[in-house]
Amino acid sequence: MPSIDVCFSPELLHLYNLKGKAVVAVDILRATSTMVTAFAHGAADIIPVMELNECQAYASQGCLTAAEREGIKAEGFDFGNSPFSYMETDITGRTIAITTTNGTRAIRMSEEAAEIVIGAFLNLDAVAKHLTELQLDVIIVCAGWKGMFNLEDTLFAGALTEQLLDLAQFSSANDATLAALHLYKKANSDVLSFLNDSSHVQRMKRLGIQKDIEFCLQHNVYDVLPVWKKDRLVDLKKEIIEK
Amino acid sequence: MPSIDVCFSPELLHLYNLKGKAVVAVDILRATSTMVTAFAHGAADIIPVMELNECQAYASQGCLTAAEREGIKAEGFDFGNSPFSYMETDITGRTIAITTTNGTRAIRMSEEAAEIVIGAFLNLDAVAKHLTELQLDVIIVCAGWKGMFNLEDTLFAGALTEQLLDLAQFSSANDATLAALHLYKKANSDVLSFLNDSSHVQRMKRLGIQKDIEFCLQHNVYDVLPVWKKDRLVDLKKEIIEK
Repeated sequence: MPSIDVCFSPELLHLYNLKGKAVVAVDILRATSTMVTAFAHGAADIIPVMELNECQAYASQGCLTAAEREGIKAEGFDFGNSPFSYMETDITGRTIAITTTNGTRAIRMSEEAAEIVIGAFLNLDAVAKHLTELQLDVIIVCAGWKGMFNLEDTLFAGALTEQLLDLAQFSSANDATLAALHLYKKANSDVLSFLNDSSHVQRMKRLGIQKDIEFCLQHNVYDVLPVWKKDRLVDLKKEIIEK
Repeated sequence: MPSIDVCFSPELLHLYNLKGKAVVAVDILRATSTMVTAFAHGAADIIPVMELNECQAYASQGCLTAAEREGIKAEGFDFGNSPFSYMETDITGRTIAITTTNGTRAIRMSEEAAEIVIGAFLNLDAVAKHLTELQLDVIIVCAGWKGMFNLEDTLFAGALTEQLLDLAQFSSANDATLAALHLYKKANSDVLSFLNDSSHVQRMKRLGIQKDIEFCLQHNVYDVLPVWKKDRLVDLKKEIIEK
């Protein structure tokens, strides 16, 4: 029976053996929610990078570029980290290079896994269904906030765990998985209210992006499945259709 | 208003600034519960050390020695890590050198804090009262299991947070604190049942130490307050009486 593990921070990732496993990278506010949204609005592929200058270099290759630091759009880039940016501009068929504080890090640190899937509430069902078909051990890697535990990624881990346990035979392997599940069960009638005291939501409210928060907490808006292929993210759903 | 932070693992401790703060080191199953029990039964002081050979060397200085690895008493030492060992032997006035897998590490890594207090459910009230008097920012450092998040230390963090918020003006600073509080509120009617699925409790049950688990989850059995002084732990309650 495949297991479900949750890793609360990239800083703890070295304690996990990722080989042969499926990693779900999650940064609800907002990197992975935004990536899912970009694919839903036609992006061809997404290149997640760690550094601002590395990201900027992709502009000369005809890519769109997106960068956020401390929750704010970095200067000189096409987009910040708001899912709404990808609805306002036509991005059909474009490649987007993206760097964010926490989310990119979680993805790039998981490269030894058998599969890396991008998870968000927005594509929860698609992710759960895919993992059920894969039947690999799952490790949900929360991006956290600068290496620290955060609530919104944990709630997503709980939501995905609940769904996997409903859909198929999985065992919830560790205490982090149990904690995430308990917290999601407590929060799921109203995730937004539950998160209202959380540090990241407070921080984002101060930045005036309440609209983004509400958007990112919606479940199953998009049927997209971003996965890591060689050096970039592609939408597996689209690849299947095109084949 | 002083704040309450929770750090879920010694592996995350470098992200926290401990200077001028009060650290509560916690390893419910069983290092800190056992230390509290040892002081309650007359130990003069406790020297926590990282390595087995370092611990063993203290025997030649007239100390009692205690060592546990992977949940089992290490060979050649007076005690393992069961709180009951300290009830069966007369330890009045003795110094105990102790090394454990996770707990010792959490203590020794916190040495730059203004105060390190040893916390367990067994002395919860004494710890809460002391912190209320100190009025320093509090960081509850969970020992975890080999660097990973664990539930029992998190529930203690939630219990202590609840008590501090009841007793005085504290702010719960981060998402880890909120998560711990939510989990404790869900568990507190029956902590033992809540922990039944947890990985560490399962592991300890396989070792046949169910009795230890039940003992360590009892609230407020002992009015002792182990704190770090220079190079060892002493019981602050006893120091106050002796003065």
